Amino acid sequence: VVVNLASVERPIINSKSMETLEDFENALDENDESLTSGMIYAYAAISQKCGYVNFTPAVTADVPALEQLAKRNGVVLAGKDGKTGQTLYKTVLASMFQKRGLKVEGWYSTNILGNRDGEILNDQEHVKSKISTKQGVLPSILKYDDFVHQVHIHYYPPRGDLKEAWDNIDFTGWFGVKMQMKVNWLGCDSILAAPLVVDLVRWVHFLQGLGMSGNVKELGSYFKAPVGLEENDFFDQWLLLRSLN
Amino acid sequence: VVVNLASVERPIINSKSMETLEDFENALDENDESLTSGMIYAYAAISQKCGYVNFTPAVTADVPALEQLAKRNGVVLAGKDGKTGQTLYKTVLASMFQKRGLKVEGWYSTNILGNRDGEILNDQEHVKSKISTKQGVLPSILKYDDFVHQVHIHYYPPRGDLKEAWDNIDFTGWFGVKMQMKVNWLGCDSILAAPLVVDLVRWVHFLQGLGMSGNVKELGSYFKAPVGLEENDFFDQWLLLRSLN
Amino acid sequence: VVVNLASVERPIINSKSMETLEDFENALDENDESLTSGMIYAYAAISQKCGYVNFTPAVTADVPALEQLAKRNGVVLAGKDGKTGQTLYKTVLASMFQKRGLKVEGWYSTNILGNRDGEILNDQEHVKSKISTKQGVLPSILKYDDFVHQVHIHYYPPRGDLKEAWDNIDFTGWFGVKMQMKVNWLGCDSILAAPLVVDLVRWVHFLQGLGMSGNVKELGSYFKAPVGLEENDFFDQWLLLRSLN
Amino acid sequence: VVVNLASVERPIINSKSMETLEDFENALDENDESLTSGMIYAYAAISQKCGYVNFTPAVTADVPALEQLAKRNGVVLAGKDGKTGQTLYKTVLASMFQKRGLKVEGWYSTNILGNRDGEILNDQEHVKSKISTKQGVLPSILKYDDFVHQVHIHYYPPRGDLKEAWDNIDFTGWFGVKMQMKVNWLGCDSILAAPLVVDLVRWVHFLQGLGMSGNVKELGSYFKAPVGLEENDFFDQWLLLRSLN
Repeated sequence: VVVNLASVERPIINSKSMETLEDFENALDENDESLTSGMIYAYAAISQKCGYVNFTPAVTADVPALEQLAKRNGVVLAGKDGKTGQTLYKTVLASMFQKRGLKVEGWYSTNILGNRDGEILNDQEHVKSKISTKQGVLPSILKYDDFVHQVHIHYYPPRGDLKEAWDNIDFTGWFGVKMQMKVNWLGCDSILAAPLVVDLVRWVHFLQGLGMSGNVKELGSYFKAPVGLEENDFFDQWLLLRSLN
Repeated sequence: VVVNLASVERPIINSKSMETLEDFENALDENDESLTSGMIYAYAAISQKCGYVNFTPAVTADVPALEQLAKRNGVVLAGKDGKTGQTLYKTVLASMFQKRGLKVEGWYSTNILGNRDGEILNDQEHVKSKISTKQGVLPSILKYDDFVHQVHIHYYPPRGDLKEAWDNIDFTGWFGVKMQMKVNWLGCDSILAAPLVVDLVRWVHFLQGLGMSGNVKELGSYFKAPVGLEENDFFDQWLLLRSLN
Repeated sequence: VVVNLASVERPIINSKSMETLEDFENALDENDESLTSGMIYAYAAISQKCGYVNFTPAVTADVPALEQLAKRNGVVLAGKDGKTGQTLYKTVLASMFQKRGLKVEGWYSTNILGNRDGEILNDQEHVKSKISTKQGVLPSILKYDDFVHQVHIHYYPPRGDLKEAWDNIDFTGWFGVKMQMKVNWLGCDSILAAPLVVDLVRWVHFLQGLGMSGNVKELGSYFKAPVGLEENDFFDQWLLLRSLN
Repeated sequence: VVVNLASVERPIINSKSMETLEDFENALDENDESLTSGMIYAYAAISQKCGYVNFTPAVTADVPALEQLAKRNGVVLAGKDGKTGQTLYKTVLASMFQKRGLKVEGWYSTNILGNRDGEILNDQEHVKSKISTKQGVLPSILKYDDFVHQVHIHYYPPRGDLKEAWDNIDFTGWFGVKMQMKVNWLGCDSILAAPLVVDLVRWVHFLQGLGMSGNVKELGSYFKAPVGLEENDFFDQWLLLRSLN
């Protein structure tokens, strides 16, 4: 099983060369620059019939060409962007607000991190991939999208290998009464990611052995942007995972 | 349907007079002081075949004598202690920590509130009832009890009708790496409670009409200390509620 | 006394037309676009011998041409950018860290606000003026500049007329032990600004009556970027103010 | 110079034996239990003409008998209760609120700590000494006392050698508009205390060499409850310290 744990790549612009496997392989032969390193590594893994996990927000195996190859080769795919910290608790708390009928009016999230991951996210292009996976999670849980949702990420060297997140959630109850919830998270991404990576390697190996192939939506609880699954509610995702047993 | 929304009462000390319905009625005839106002109101409600909801942490209908009467009279009971704010999100976040294998080492919770509810909780005896329902929720979710759990409540008049809660959660990941999560909640108990009360009245009326009686564990997601249900995980409780449909 | 309380303007680019009063008046005659509305209002005020207060971060009376006119006309100037909330407490806490020999390694500040002020700050050009006055305050207090200082401002409509700030301060003590302080401020800018504006009008009127003119550095404690004063430490500024008595 | 850095002692009850030096020495001869260990160590230090610093909240040299002995022996005293963390920033922020005319309506402070100091503070009697020095600081700074001030300390083993403090400050501006400031402090008491202790040893040695004796109020900025000084405002205390130069 190959796991992509690299720093985030820039968003892809032109996706024509990734539509079919033939397009992809032609593009590869022509050194087409629209193919990213992440895709090429994914192609290599899938060609070798290795299960493939995309733990990053980059577009890699989640293009039609590679999904086609995975199906053909009997390879299990899982992705993308490990749900380790802020997005994890957001998809938990949003579920609570929805189930209690409390209307979220605004959700402001900011992150500071200090290592090489942070440095790369400091690039205005790279950070777009990351913010896009973090940004999309709330509407499918809340079942509405008339609220303000902001996600900011800042490279802040004093935080070192740790990551700090701060959230402010504005919500209203009956009679429009305004209430607030705030969260401060002092985590360590590597430590939070490691057991998920090990779990995923085991799952992918096990499911491929059962004859599954392509994206496995049942593994969605591990990811910020689960490929092939609309659901971002952590608990609904958890029930899906349990259904594998 | 009768709903108890009174301020918290002191914990009961001697429960002998509540063991059987006969004991209870004898105690009532003798003006036995161990029967609390809450119990007497519950008795009156159940005798009149009114559904009964205990939204407070006090011991009221949750004594064998009154459960017996409820069964006999075909009365639905629901309780106890509405799960509106801090305990609600604690039973949501604890579930997340458990499902991600993150070991909670300590959970420090404090509350400040300024209205009459706060004033009564300022009494060292009354507050015990409240802290006991707030204190018990974590072990059944986390599936272990080797952690420090503190819950404090303080009467703080400047907060007025609002309630503020602050939590600090210490948890560890692989290699014992220490991490922290902190929550600050600025809520309004009445506004959070009101829709739950209306829901409960509808549920109790509806379920009694279906022929149910006694404590309904499926309503556990509404309560801090659900009578007849060991489970405090909000999402497991939610699945139970959905099973009523 | 004229007070500028308008929303922030974009930073000025070319300042050649503001070097001398003659340049300024020529530019005015030629409708030179490098003169901003704020400057023209300031010019009008000073010409009429009205004391002038710049409560905004924009460059208005703080150009040589207008300072020259103020001196000539016996007009007192005060500015700029009212120190009402986050910057106020930052210039207080920074003084504490400095006096206790605690080394600040990083200071991350973020702000959310929802009214028209916020909307204008949402413009990438306008916000630069604001961030520049907020950004400059720490080194003169701490007496060093080898630390990371970030200031972010976001337009967040759910916050309405209120303003929320969040700060994280990383500091070290002996043996490099890392410590943190975090601040969350829930304020209302108009209410915080109003008494300062009234104070300033009184001071400017009073000092102009005493025969003073030009920028009065003793009024520095009211401002984020006091014109003519290097000192940003709130308490040193306070001693200066007291020296006026 | 002798420095008392022991854990906090219980408050003294009967102070008759400490009124004069003669009373004290008689009590000592009779093994009178109202004399605490802290007092006896202080007596030993002062008798040996050693400068004496009380870094703890206990009553030790701050009784008439020992102040008399210190004066007679030319011994400098400094105390009491090192101002290292929460009380330090409170006496800084309170000064800001007072100088800006912002009315403090409530100040709720809580502390969690996990080491032996915390364990001893867990004793309901010992903690009283500590809370009393922490509780008294605000009115002299704010110049009024019609506000609610709560200070809580809890022994919370997961925090280990570190100390966490959380404050909520409710204040009002014009028209009674309510605002809030919240502080979260993650400090390490030993690291914060160490340089203060070294400073104090130097100061006491230096001032005793200049011929001073008894309590030196100019050292008040180092302490939560400066003996002989009414002033708790950190910046006024700082000006006093500077006046020694």
